[in-house]
Amino acid sequence: MPVPGPGYSITVRVEAPPSTTAAGDLTSAIGRAGGVITAFDVVESHADRIVVDITCNALSANHANDLTEILHALPGVRVRKVSDRTFLVHLGGKIEVNSKVALANRDDLSRAYTPGVARVCTAIAENPEDARRLTVKRNSVAVVTDGSAVLGLGNIGPEAALPVMEGKAALFKKFAGVNAWPVCLDTQDTEEIIRAVELIAPVYGGINLEDIAAPRCFEIEARLREKLNIPVFHDDQHGTAIVVLGALRNALRVVGKDIGDCRIVVCGVGAAGSAIIRLLQHKSPADIIAVDIDGIVHTGRGDTDENLRSIAASTNKDGRTGTLSDAVRGADVFIGVSAPNLLSSDDVATMNSDSIVFALANPDPEIDPLDAQKHAKVVATGRSDYPNQINNVLAFPGFFRGLLDAHAHKITDDMMIAAANAIADVVDGEERVNASFIVPSVFDSAVAPAVAEAVKRAAIASRAGDPQPRGGSSLPWSMAEDLDY
Amino acid sequence: MPVPGPGYSITVRVEAPPSTTAAGDLTSAIGRAGGVITAFDVVESHADRIVVDITCNALSANHANDLTEILHALPGVRVRKVSDRTFLVHLGGKIEVNSKVALANRDDLSRAYTPGVARVCTAIAENPEDARRLTVKRNSVAVVTDGSAVLGLGNIGPEAALPVMEGKAALFKKFAGVNAWPVCLDTQDTEEIIRAVELIAPVYGGINLEDIAAPRCFEIEARLREKLNIPVFHDDQHGTAIVVLGALRNALRVVGKDIGDCRIVVCGVGAAGSAIIRLLQHKSPADIIAVDIDGIVHTGRGDTDENLRSIAASTNKDGRTGTLSDAVRGADVFIGVSAPNLLSSDDVATMNSDSIVFALANPDPEIDPLDAQKHAKVVATGRSDYPNQINNVLAFPGFFRGLLDAHAHKITDDMMIAAANAIADVVDGEERVNASFIVPSVFDSAVAPAVAEAVKRAAIASRAGDPQPRGGSSLPWSMAEDLDY
Repeated sequence: MPVPGPGYSITVRVEAPPSTTAAGDLTSAIGRAGGVITAFDVVESHADRIVVDITCNALSANHANDLTEILHALPGVRVRKVSDRTFLVHLGGKIEVNSKVALANRDDLSRAYTPGVARVCTAIAENPEDARRLTVKRNSVAVVTDGSAVLGLGNIGPEAALPVMEGKAALFKKFAGVNAWPVCLDTQDTEEIIRAVELIAPVYGGINLEDIAAPRCFEIEARLREKLNIPVFHDDQHGTAIVVLGALRNALRVVGKDIGDCRIVVCGVGAAGSAIIRLLQHKSPADIIAVDIDGIVHTGRGDTDENLRSIAASTNKDGRTGTLSDAVRGADVFIGVSAPNLLSSDDVATMNSDSIVFALANPDPEIDPLDAQKHAKVVATGRSDYPNQINNVLAFPGFFRGLLDAHAHKITDDMMIAAANAIADVVDGEERVNASFIVPSVFDSAVAPAVAEAVKRAAIASRAGDPQPRGGSSLPWSMAEDLDY
Repeated sequence: MPVPGPGYSITVRVEAPPSTTAAGDLTSAIGRAGGVITAFDVVESHADRIVVDITCNALSANHANDLTEILHALPGVRVRKVSDRTFLVHLGGKIEVNSKVALANRDDLSRAYTPGVARVCTAIAENPEDARRLTVKRNSVAVVTDGSAVLGLGNIGPEAALPVMEGKAALFKKFAGVNAWPVCLDTQDTEEIIRAVELIAPVYGGINLEDIAAPRCFEIEARLREKLNIPVFHDDQHGTAIVVLGALRNALRVVGKDIGDCRIVVCGVGAAGSAIIRLLQHKSPADIIAVDIDGIVHTGRGDTDENLRSIAASTNKDGRTGTLSDAVRGADVFIGVSAPNLLSSDDVATMNSDSIVFALANPDPEIDPLDAQKHAKVVATGRSDYPNQINNVLAFPGFFRGLLDAHAHKITDDMMIAAANAIADVVDGEERVNASFIVPSVFDSAVAPAVAEAVKRAAIASRAGDPQPRGGSSLPWSMAEDLDY
């Protein structure tokens, strides 16, 4: 049963008679209609009328309109204006480009622009790697989408995807100080997407692919990793896999199991499920069973999709076949990144004792977590209104902070595992892990720095990073020590 | 004779003996070597030594190194560190992306990101024009280059061009509050550039082409104007032409001539020269004579370049031939956008009385303005160290402010003429125009708003603008009045 939330919050400005009961009439009308009032402000008070701003949460856009109509229908009440706070937040966009340098006088201009800038351009022309020191490339990430798989909304195109990419960019800056800029491409052709990202790459120190439909996203990511000398991350794959791996480590600690003894069912083999399986394989679980809309994935299915074939070949040791119910019977861990209500409470009952259920489908999970809890020891979802929210925000800001600080050229599985451990350690380190607390809050400011440090170390260790080499740099010799800012 | 400027400013930290003459020894050594000290700060003072930061302007990068060596050679003096202030300004880039919205708690997150953002995405999917209201597209411009004609440096490529594009972006924000983002493309193929700009266009309300070599830039601009429903501006063409037209209007007022009676010589028919000619033709001067490296442009030359052919066909009524000297003889106006020292003082002497000379080649003009002044009544250059600096900064920020505020879909010549008049009026309006004051200072904060207003009016008048139509908008009805923020 959903409750009115701030996602559907409106502010209604009404004129009402100055009667002593006016305020009560208005608020009780909203209450009777199921709205939750969060603010009541008198704007004007006259002999013949009062003007009030009523801010309230609704269940949906339609419910918000109903609440407005209900106020309108009250005797003597006139609705002057309705402001939808969610839309107001988005007016004119959620991000902006600002200058870091003063441009107050000619001296400023002659250093930041002509003629001084020419010397900086020449230095970069002589040694392109200096672009990572002397330009915004040092600290910038492209958030690239084709608008083909946006949230739960599907293929809504590049313009409509922009508010999500802007939100992502805002989160990059808030949690990790990274400059992220949306790149919403007006094509869904694989070759064109790859080429476009190649062409814009000089400005960026990293590429974050976002909400691109599978299986297209796999080829785009793989080909770009070959072509570019900056790291390419696909948040729907790698971000999710990192957070799941970190959460699973702590969940296994709660139930006291070793991953080497666990059979893990992964339901959904799109971008997220495939990446989760590949990262889990580094931890050598007893077995992984992948399940998609056609049931258990096995080599006998004769799938033609290259991604499915490689998963079939590397999972399901015993060649099981059947349904999701068959897969979870006797399993230790269920990880769902698929669709709502695919898993029943009875299914969970057939799992091993002390089972773990991650039901991550958004907004509605594979099983209601309250049902899952009847038989599972640890339950996590992607939702903010239950414990253990598995949210990519725990991974991508700090991950890119680390990549940029290491001047990384590529992403390795070691970096992703290091990030997963860093997320797990934030909980494990400070407080005792328990069944309701296997991952930190998305607002825990300790997460991003911990992830960044772990990724930077892994990058430098694996030589994927480039710790500001002096050799070949055409910077004035004395600049070296100024570079760590 | 150049003078030491802030474009080559260094700060040298030295240890010196604590003698009473130490400061004098250091400063006089710099002075003898031709450096200009702008700051002298004692950082530490010990019994055995003092540590001083000496900041000084040099003539060139080499001269800056010489000054360091000279200090190093003084008895008892040790140079600890040299900081090049121009490079320091560029460390980590000159622009950044910031969030405009609070993300302090779950309510913020649920409005700016999921789940609230989904409603905004849906609204835009139903009516893509709403992207101009509810996203960063409302106020964003792409600064697009292929790095093929950067400043006077030529074809230095996309990474090396980035510091210039960042500087441009910083100026966009400072003078007009526009979000500008650098798009440095890793290709110089005309078709690839056109396609790449098409693909990234959804995020932007306008395209500013920058430092793309001629003649490629003409086709790219023309084709993009056909393909895109957002305005496409090429600053090297249109920005320069607008400022030149505005400056010429005031210069003609100073000499008391009507443009209809004037023969105008335009030296250089690249991006800037060609655009200047086309805009001037709207003012019907008596004649325009175009001159390039092969002399006077005329139909008999058999040029194959399409741009040259159209210019030959629309200028030089009397079919003149010959050199630049032949062209300027008896001319009223010289406009140079070509190369250093092409025009002699004797040439200027052969022009009509009360002649006007705009020598705009950068950094070294077609003629030293002091020589030009011997015979010309009004002289302007692109340099900041002479009166009448013709600088595109007077045009592009306000021009795009106006385009964005009008929701313009294209750029018309009327808009450019309106912008030129607005620039001229800033000088003309407040103070009497004179031979040393035909254009406002680049720091005159009245310019951008005046240009913006003129462009917005012209856009709406020519219906190239889209003054926030209500029809078809899927925004909540009440949003309309919130849109003017």
